[in-house]
Amino acid sequence: MDNRPIGVFDSGLGGLTVVKKMRELMPGEDIVYFGDTGRVPYGGRSEKTLLKYVAQDIAFLESFDVKMIVAACGTASAVALPKLRQKPELPMLGVLDAAASSALSATKNGKIAVIATAATVKSDAYRKKLVAIKTDAEVFSKACPLFVPLVENGHLDSQVAHLVAEEYLSEVSAFGADTLIMGCTHYPLLAKTIGDVLGDGVRLIDVGEAISRQMLEVLKQRDLLSDKSEGGVCRYYVSDEVDNFETLGGLFLQSKIEGMVSKIDIDKYECPGADAL
Amino acid sequence: MDNRPIGVFDSGLGGLTVVKKMRELMPGEDIVYFGDTGRVPYGGRSEKTLLKYVAQDIAFLESFDVKMIVAACGTASAVALPKLRQKPELPMLGVLDAAASSALSATKNGKIAVIATAATVKSDAYRKKLVAIKTDAEVFSKACPLFVPLVENGHLDSQVAHLVAEEYLSEVSAFGADTLIMGCTHYPLLAKTIGDVLGDGVRLIDVGEAISRQMLEVLKQRDLLSDKSEGGVCRYYVSDEVDNFETLGGLFLQSKIEGMVSKIDIDKYECPGADAL
Repeated sequence: MDNRPIGVFDSGLGGLTVVKKMRELMPGEDIVYFGDTGRVPYGGRSEKTLLKYVAQDIAFLESFDVKMIVAACGTASAVALPKLRQKPELPMLGVLDAAASSALSATKNGKIAVIATAATVKSDAYRKKLVAIKTDAEVFSKACPLFVPLVENGHLDSQVAHLVAEEYLSEVSAFGADTLIMGCTHYPLLAKTIGDVLGDGVRLIDVGEAISRQMLEVLKQRDLLSDKSEGGVCRYYVSDEVDNFETLGGLFLQSKIEGMVSKIDIDKYECPGADAL
Repeated sequence: MDNRPIGVFDSGLGGLTVVKKMRELMPGEDIVYFGDTGRVPYGGRSEKTLLKYVAQDIAFLESFDVKMIVAACGTASAVALPKLRQKPELPMLGVLDAAASSALSATKNGKIAVIATAATVKSDAYRKKLVAIKTDAEVFSKACPLFVPLVENGHLDSQVAHLVAEEYLSEVSAFGADTLIMGCTHYPLLAKTIGDVLGDGVRLIDVGEAISRQMLEVLKQRDLLSDKSEGGVCRYYVSDEVDNFETLGGLFLQSKIEGMVSKIDIDKYECPGADAL
């Protein structure tokens, strides 16, 4: 039993889709969320810059004495997390591992497609992870760089969203995948559009759902669950002003967060070894 | 006569459309360009964060003993530049003033529309500037937050670009403007699409062209022109890795820049007074 909070970070808003699933699945847990809104988006940045940013995000969350750290950002999970030193006493989970396991359980024909940011696709991390677990898995990855700005500008089910989805997903259809990993935490908001384009034959894997289930397992295994069964408190921190985050955050969480968000200076959180990683 | 370089900064790639015009108009000038690719885009950030970033960008350029500083970023020009202390010995120009003057010269019916990033529109800087010069000017401003990601993903003249432009520009047409300021340095790459949607009756103001003409005037007035009439050297610096900038930079400049770009750590350039601004 451990009543310390769980630390969750993302480049900005997307990770709130993970928080939403966590609240449903483990409503007694306290959460500290950091959204790096002053430096969002992560999806187009280089590996070296991502390593620096993610090391700072983790250093900030560690200042709250958290019992677990969750990279609720597809790009951070795929590109940076595997290269950061793990601490045995502090479990650190990313959406990649959880989504890969879910996809392998779901697929029947062994053909899995991954849609994600440019940085995630470039890292090839999903294909490597899937093939490491199931050597004969066939994996097709496609970067969808316009999906994040579309979501953040309210294009969830518009004609523009459909056209862009058709453009990005035509190769996924041609590949013949029966399972699609939505490898970026913004994408569940486009699930209806993506589903319309791909049709009923393709199972969509929501990384937020996958990682929340994995978190619950790890918390149980390590006896780290809170003794509260409800009423967990969530605090939100961002690196730009709070206004925009509060407004758009409601869209992702489907509940209000006004007055619960604070701004911090992420530049002050240095991870000394980050440059050498 | 002054052979020191001109410093130009932008949030990322967009300012290269300004560099392109500068090279045409003053081919003998040396240029130091900084693109803040590690923290791009600026268009959705708060005023306070923008002030900090722009102060750092300027501090970096000042380290080159430049003779003039140009904010080749619509958002930086509109939101941050008016609030930063001007130094009499170092002229500092932004695209806003130049574009406002060009638009007022061009308009016949006094109705000017401005399209720009969310931060620029929120600042209301274009309307204030236009009305300060011509009190009876009528101004309509519209944020176009999807234009930058569309350009950066090659959607210059696609069906998606047209649909998004129609959505953003319908109010511009209804307003009856005869002149449109493209208030973001990415937008000239969408000029054909924007022109198709608005029709021949609307004159498009390219901020890169406007500011290059203004720069030439100021350099002449202050006797700061280089004594070279051609062969000016351009060095490029960025805050993320150089690869992506080199590749996309060619699109903006319409010439190759491979091997001419270096990465720097912008966090090291602090402007002590920036927090108090």
